[in-house]
Amino acid sequence: TENITIGSYLLTRLEQLGVTSMFGLPGDFNLAFLDLVEDHPKIDWVGNCSSNELNAAYAADGYARVKETSLGVITTTFGVGELSAINGIAGSFSEMVPVLHIVGAPSTGQQKNRPLLHHTLGDGRYDAYSKAAQQFVVHESHIVNKANAAADIDTALVECITKARPVYLTLPTDMVYEEISSERLKIPLSSTRAPNDPEKEDFVSNLIHERVKEAGGDVVILVDACVIRHHVRKETLEFLHKTGFPVFATPMGKSAVPEDYNRYGGTYIGNLSHNEVKESVENAKLIISLGLLSSDFNTGNFSYHIPTNRHIELHSDHCKVQFARFEGIAFKYLLPKLADKLQEFQKTALGIKVPSVHYPIPSEGSSTTITHAWFWPRLSTFFQPKDVVVTETGTSNFGIADSTLPEGVILLNQILWGSIGWSVGSALGAALAARDVGLNRTILFVGDGSLQLTVQELSTMIRKGVTPIIFVLNNKGYTIEKFIHGKHRAYNDIADWDLKALLNTFNAKQTHKTASYTVHTKSELDELLGKADFAKADKIQLVEVMMEALDAPPAMLRQWDSKK
Amino acid sequence: TENITIGSYLLTRLEQLGVTSMFGLPGDFNLAFLDLVEDHPKIDWVGNCSSNELNAAYAADGYARVKETSLGVITTTFGVGELSAINGIAGSFSEMVPVLHIVGAPSTGQQKNRPLLHHTLGDGRYDAYSKAAQQFVVHESHIVNKANAAADIDTALVECITKARPVYLTLPTDMVYEEISSERLKIPLSSTRAPNDPEKEDFVSNLIHERVKEAGGDVVILVDACVIRHHVRKETLEFLHKTGFPVFATPMGKSAVPEDYNRYGGTYIGNLSHNEVKESVENAKLIISLGLLSSDFNTGNFSYHIPTNRHIELHSDHCKVQFARFEGIAFKYLLPKLADKLQEFQKTALGIKVPSVHYPIPSEGSSTTITHAWFWPRLSTFFQPKDVVVTETGTSNFGIADSTLPEGVILLNQILWGSIGWSVGSALGAALAARDVGLNRTILFVGDGSLQLTVQELSTMIRKGVTPIIFVLNNKGYTIEKFIHGKHRAYNDIADWDLKALLNTFNAKQTHKTASYTVHTKSELDELLGKADFAKADKIQLVEVMMEALDAPPAMLRQWDSKK
Ligand SMILES: Cc1ncc(C[n+]2csc(CCOP(=O)(O)OP(=O)(O)O)c2C)c(N)n1
Ligand SMILES: Cc1ncc(C[n+]2csc(CCOP(=O)(O)OP(=O)(O)O)c2C)c(N)n1
Ligand SMILES: [Mg+2]
Ligand SMILES: [Mg+2]
Repeated sequence: TENITIGSYLLTRLEQLGVTSMFGLPGDFNLAFLDLVEDHPKIDWVGNCSSNELNAAYAADGYARVKETSLGVITTTFGVGELSAINGIAGSFSEMVPVLHIVGAPSTGQQKNRPLLHHTLGDGRYDAYSKAAQQFVVHESHIVNKANAAADIDTALVECITKARPVYLTLPTDMVYEEISSERLKIPLSSTRAPNDPEKEDFVSNLIHERVKEAGGDVVILVDACVIRHHVRKETLEFLHKTGFPVFATPMGKSAVPEDYNRYGGTYIGNLSHNEVKESVENAKLIISLGLLSSDFNTGNFSYHIPTNRHIELHSDHCKVQFARFEGIAFKYLLPKLADKLQEFQKTALGIKVPSVHYPIPSEGSSTTITHAWFWPRLSTFFQPKDVVVTETGTSNFGIADSTLPEGVILLNQILWGSIGWSVGSALGAALAARDVGLNRTILFVGDGSLQLTVQELSTMIRKGVTPIIFVLNNKGYTIEKFIHGKHRAYNDIADWDLKALLNTFNAKQTHKTASYTVHTKSELDELLGKADFAKADKIQLVEVMMEALDAPPAMLRQWDSKK
Repeated sequence: TENITIGSYLLTRLEQLGVTSMFGLPGDFNLAFLDLVEDHPKIDWVGNCSSNELNAAYAADGYARVKETSLGVITTTFGVGELSAINGIAGSFSEMVPVLHIVGAPSTGQQKNRPLLHHTLGDGRYDAYSKAAQQFVVHESHIVNKANAAADIDTALVECITKARPVYLTLPTDMVYEEISSERLKIPLSSTRAPNDPEKEDFVSNLIHERVKEAGGDVVILVDACVIRHHVRKETLEFLHKTGFPVFATPMGKSAVPEDYNRYGGTYIGNLSHNEVKESVENAKLIISLGLLSSDFNTGNFSYHIPTNRHIELHSDHCKVQFARFEGIAFKYLLPKLADKLQEFQKTALGIKVPSVHYPIPSEGSSTTITHAWFWPRLSTFFQPKDVVVTETGTSNFGIADSTLPEGVILLNQILWGSIGWSVGSALGAALAARDVGLNRTILFVGDGSLQLTVQELSTMIRKGVTPIIFVLNNKGYTIEKFIHGKHRAYNDIADWDLKALLNTFNAKQTHKTASYTVHTKSELDELLGKADFAKADKIQLVEVMMEALDAPPAMLRQWDSKK
């Protein structure tokens, strides 16, 4: 068999896994590896134009979320580069997104002798960065010799994909061009987990069948983040079709099930839910949740009213039936079995009424102001099938609950980690992945405050020729923070930017077509949304949406009212 | 005695230490503390306008560097905020800059019960961030009860200042308004280290006297980073005056000694030095270095020719005479003694010829192109006493070696850590500190590539009304990287920005005066530098300096030539 350099081995594996974009920044410890990346026919180097490493990590995260079953990859340089990215990596850990972080490191000789190199801490510690990284990854591989390189790379990749979480891989400068056998490359990496133990699986599905029977088929399904992260959308939908149970989504589970599915009843957020939704979910005799992630913002501040004895939880690697926990039972394999088993309840299930998710656009009299109450339902008809929608922490994450998303729309948010600025980098990665897999437009909703943290990523979007529609909600500051604390505090204000000038500023030579708009009124926005030229999204477009500083989506108003 | 809240106790201590600006971003875990900051009469909250946490960390670093004997302070929020800042904090560690990182953390109750809050990793680990932070600080304090709060705060501050390195302090939401005794506040914190052991100090100074005598007074002094970081400038200058020894600076030691001092001979960078400098240093019978930091870029890639038996090293907490090491002998106290003891050699010393540091501006025939060889010497006469000059990693850090800095100029660079984008945040902090202590203009030299990482910090500058002059070297990419590897690689190119549009874009309402210029030729730059209106720097000004992509300062050309 032929030999291959370690660097190329890694790239071949990434190519096999469907990676087409790599994010990051160059630095002296990764430049030689970047030669291989730049010369690679299938993998495009994204970054080093204007992004910084944090933005690159966000982009890798967004890419991985859209490109299901593949992964996001970021390459940085020792110390300065990798540490800049660490918040992004921690976010991918928290939100369960498979991101490989490749760090160009000093040569193995330097790591032994530890000279006082730039990018070091000045005290000879060469392991400080990986010790920090360990906190935020499920696995780390250090390529330190030829003998183990291939196996170490393979393990890193399998861990990343099967656990859907970040992995840290250091590649010392002297390892990149070392040659190893390419033999292993003939066997593709397996990215699926082992099947469930059949006996245990039977036991569990019988048990669940019993509970459903006891409940007389009065069951609702609640879908959450892990259905998306662990790629169980298909199994979920088949299960729903066969059983006919009504289904609801949490904020992080929104878009796991097509929202035009006729048994879909909307978003359940505990006390922050629409009344009808709250009643449908909480009055059901049995709630089967899929991939539940019970974080504060995902549960309406822990306001679920679902007693354990009426609750069955199915997860990626275990499940719970009332008080009993069953390790190692993955819902990916359990759901099809269960679908068959519970099919007998379909008729009863179809009799259960499901709330409508078509929230009417409120008529607010003659007021022309764009309110959140109006904005999000209004957007529903603007979305198209297979759009990728990205919402930022802040009012947008709450608002989108009141938009209805057509079939095949992928919604990205970071409700658990909540690092502002994430959505801008993420939208870059998402748009590249969307282009790659033939999805529709990428549509970003970002607050004026959040945008300021990562604004330079717009430049990378322009340079890479992706054409997202970017709605910037200009409400003069950190509105969500104002609701939490400090309504009239200066620390919640922001600098006034000329948002309409941004795209031009980042596009000096006008090499790419861009368009920027400011909308002050409902009719201005209506008009814009109605323009075919705008809606077709063939260039990058930024829409500044003027809003009141203290306006917020209904669910947000309910959350902070409920605290009083 | 009166009671005071823990939050106010901390702020009072900071005020006592001369802190007038605090950097950072709000987040739900620090908002209550920010009320106290915003209401504090002496401490100004900087940030939350457009900066992100990494930029805030850079700003705190720049502030601390200029505001000697005080410290820089950054406040962030749990997880997302603190991790965004970690690369900046690591840089302050590496470069020995006292920065206090205050992290607004969940309440002590939450830290015990560990609910699934936003900004957590989703697995109940609440200590992951502080474990990561530990790698990059000399001390961490967690405020967890009233009894120890004051002592813990005091220890954190003393460690930060005396060790000139970052400290990590978590402030849980429920601790901020707890009341404690204000008694301790009456005694100011001591920020000086204990004096040297007199017997040992005598021994060492006698030993050094002997060595100098043996060398017949043929001694040169080499000043480096730690003279600046440990505030030994004054002692150094007195020592130099009394002894008359010629003095040279490393790149990181540049500006430790006024460059118009008549015994100052320029920058020593091993093989990259000007010939005359190299000879003067390396031919001396004895070299006494002060605060040496022998990192690759600070030593011309480890190309010093100073044998140990001709070398005496004085440091902040130890010294070395030839092969002998003496722990606990601080140069701050040793230098005055030594000055007296070595005064007898003054006459001989004054006989040693010192190279001129007034590098002529090369005449490059009729070429109008702005070259590095021309640019940096040209700038020498533009600088004014007490300017604060900030240079970025890249060509600027090398170029400034050929500028001569007038008396009292403070030069900031990050030659050891080398995180690009640092200079922009740092210049913000530096400018605020400079305004505070009555220094002159802040002048920033930043590459077009580096600027892109942290560009939004320009917005904070505008908002805070500081008026730096910002020279952006537009050489179409990562020139320094091109010299290292990949001269014609796309990964070393960057997006083309309309640099002249930046200040306006960040200043939508034109609330502040700004000016932007592009200079293509030497005469255009000459003309601009000659304008009194420009030089007086009463508004923020950005100068785009057009340069060739593959031009570099002489020292850089020597470095990469020498590698061939
Ligand atoms: C990196 C990071 N820093 C700080 C915060 C705290 N934070 C959460 S939301 C928010 C304000 C967001 O403002 P904006 O994007 O304008 O949203 P909106 O006004 O629509 O609520 C801040 C500062 C955070 N979540 N992440
Ligand atoms: C945070 C970080 N990322 C990457 C690098 C690697 N790096 C060092 S210098 C440099 C290029 C700087 O380019 P520019 O600012 O344009 O400087 P110049 O062209 O003047 O050399 C890069 C990418 C780094 N030092 N720090
Ligand atoms: Mg806002
Ligand atoms: Mg450049």
